[in-house]
Amino acid sequence: MTFSLAIGPRVRKSPFFDATVAAGVTHFSIYNHMYMPVSYGDAEAEYWRLIRGVCLWDVACERQVEIVGPDAAALAQYLSPRDLSRCEPGQGKYVPLCDHTGRLINDPILLKLSQDRFWFSIADSDVLLWARAIAAERGYDVEVREPDASPLAVQGPKAEAVIRDLFGDWPRTLKYFWFRETELDGIPLVLARSGWSKQGGFELYLLDGTRGTQLWNLVWEAGRPYDIGPGTPNYIERVESGLLSYGGDTDADTNPFEVNLGKYLDLDIEADFIGKAALREIARSGPKRRQVGLFLDGARMAPNKHPWEVTLKGQSVGKLTVVTYSLKLERNIAIALIESGVCEPGHELEVQTMDGPRRAQVTGLPFRCRV
Amino acid sequence: MTFSLAIGPRVRKSPFFDATVAAGVTHFSIYNHMYMPVSYGDAEAEYWRLIRGVCLWDVACERQVEIVGPDAAALAQYLSPRDLSRCEPGQGKYVPLCDHTGRLINDPILLKLSQDRFWFSIADSDVLLWARAIAAERGYDVEVREPDASPLAVQGPKAEAVIRDLFGDWPRTLKYFWFRETELDGIPLVLARSGWSKQGGFELYLLDGTRGTQLWNLVWEAGRPYDIGPGTPNYIERVESGLLSYGGDTDADTNPFEVNLGKYLDLDIEADFIGKAALREIARSGPKRRQVGLFLDGARMAPNKHPWEVTLKGQSVGKLTVVTYSLKLERNIAIALIESGVCEPGHELEVQTMDGPRRAQVTGLPFRCRV
Repeated sequence: MTFSLAIGPRVRKSPFFDATVAAGVTHFSIYNHMYMPVSYGDAEAEYWRLIRGVCLWDVACERQVEIVGPDAAALAQYLSPRDLSRCEPGQGKYVPLCDHTGRLINDPILLKLSQDRFWFSIADSDVLLWARAIAAERGYDVEVREPDASPLAVQGPKAEAVIRDLFGDWPRTLKYFWFRETELDGIPLVLARSGWSKQGGFELYLLDGTRGTQLWNLVWEAGRPYDIGPGTPNYIERVESGLLSYGGDTDADTNPFEVNLGKYLDLDIEADFIGKAALREIARSGPKRRQVGLFLDGARMAPNKHPWEVTLKGQSVGKLTVVTYSLKLERNIAIALIESGVCEPGHELEVQTMDGPRRAQVTGLPFRCRV
Repeated sequence: MTFSLAIGPRVRKSPFFDATVAAGVTHFSIYNHMYMPVSYGDAEAEYWRLIRGVCLWDVACERQVEIVGPDAAALAQYLSPRDLSRCEPGQGKYVPLCDHTGRLINDPILLKLSQDRFWFSIADSDVLLWARAIAAERGYDVEVREPDASPLAVQGPKAEAVIRDLFGDWPRTLKYFWFRETELDGIPLVLARSGWSKQGGFELYLLDGTRGTQLWNLVWEAGRPYDIGPGTPNYIERVESGLLSYGGDTDADTNPFEVNLGKYLDLDIEADFIGKAALREIARSGPKRRQVGLFLDGARMAPNKHPWEVTLKGQSVGKLTVVTYSLKLERNIAIALIESGVCEPGHELEVQTMDGPRRAQVTGLPFRCRV
């Protein structure tokens, strides 16, 4: 099945849109009401470039929700089931956002820009509406808005060299998720050590949406000695690395414990936050489902178009959310959300694919390179 | 520019997805995190089928936000800047939803199913999150959820005949936006007189997501004598008719007065609702921008890919949000959001298109067939 994407004025374009078109983007999706490049037409080349080299991703669709004002810290904490009391300016934290019943509603990176200014760098749901509703109903003295800030990711083992050539030595000292406001040839940006892969790298948050092509080209030129090429959030690598795709691996009722995010929650802090009681209750009773890895037997599989049923002796025990052929492991690997009773590694299950059933074995996440 | 759309498990498929593929859909967009058909490859044929005949649209991406429980009526009213006190079960109303500062955040149809059960049939933003935040923070005794309800639109002047052949005479008596719960060959559904065109028609809200193809085929068979064919929300007709596209014609700060929705607001009711004070202030001082129609001189224009600047003597006065060649008027027509000072019909402006400037004349909305 191949369909065309309608390009029109209703969906926003990234500041890097023209640059990605010039670089040969072939496939888009839509994310946070924006076009998001998802392929340049050669999935294997893009994978190996990420694993062994360096690539450039337009991820401007990771929008920022900015909270600024006297009550910004209080609102950021109330939205976050994670302790922010020791978060410093210049520090980022991965924060699973939940609603009042403990459902996961997004999994942003929080960036603390100053004592009274925070960004949530969001996955695909309208956190702007959520945060505005909460702020207004509780009377927080803050402004909640979307700043002109569009991430461009430089990912892969050679990303550090490219960033060094552009910015000097200081970015090497950035700890993971930490960032600094800086500029490049007069282009204002935030440089963060982050990105949706486990291959290392940085994200450059462009702070002037009129200069996307200029920033793209500067990074591209600096990357030439390292054979930089275009890429996108990588389907294969993210499954190998067990990175969560909000909306892909989660459904309408997923809670953070089900998708192994419990370690990011601080349920015993004094501060109140949304979902505190509900999350404590889930922590006490244990989640009913768990996200696991699966190995699937048989011939090389193409990526799935829909979630597939996972069964045990003919009974549904959950859903496979994503499957891919791992180029590193040279076998079919998948992520599934299944009943807690069958989530231990080694369990033998069946997956009802589009082309019939396949045997599957449960394993932990992330996938290990040697199995 | 033609790009492929990546079809994967992160974006949901409509219950009618397989049927639309079988019917030859060629272009999709993504709307409310779902694939939305936007073309079957022949824009003119789809237009004339809507204007003169009858067509079938998969608009399952118009998701429902259901509010149910003892406080459902109170919450629905608090969310709505429109008087719901005389809304009856079986009645629908167009309700511009606003935030606390009067920004338009969606423009759903409200359906009152019973005294304690309401749906908002939404445009493309996460009203589910918005309503849940409000409900929880204010302690309303309600449940807010997404029901299994997926609209299939039957639009065009011959839609009434198709619906009569399927359901009998009673749907003819439905007033606009009114609806009834019913079934077809045992398929549960809500039948409403509504749809995003001015050509008349109905929407069938399928209440069992496993039976999409069955419902599509039933309507298709009933439509054969009327030469039914596939269609989608129609770009050309909606501009001619001046129908608002939320997210297309609006930006992050648009208020309802700017886009001519003031007539749907009831700012003097006793009940409190979100944005009441802010909307009253805008009503008092007048909106700074207004949505208008534009006629554009010169050769036939293709639809725009981006919003375009509208200028007067070289100065920006706003944005053209959508332009199309009207097959009925046989000239270029557009919708723009421009400064109130230049919004009177007859004003001569310029539009900075991708291919250079074009002269434009302001006119009212909807466009008149005779000009």
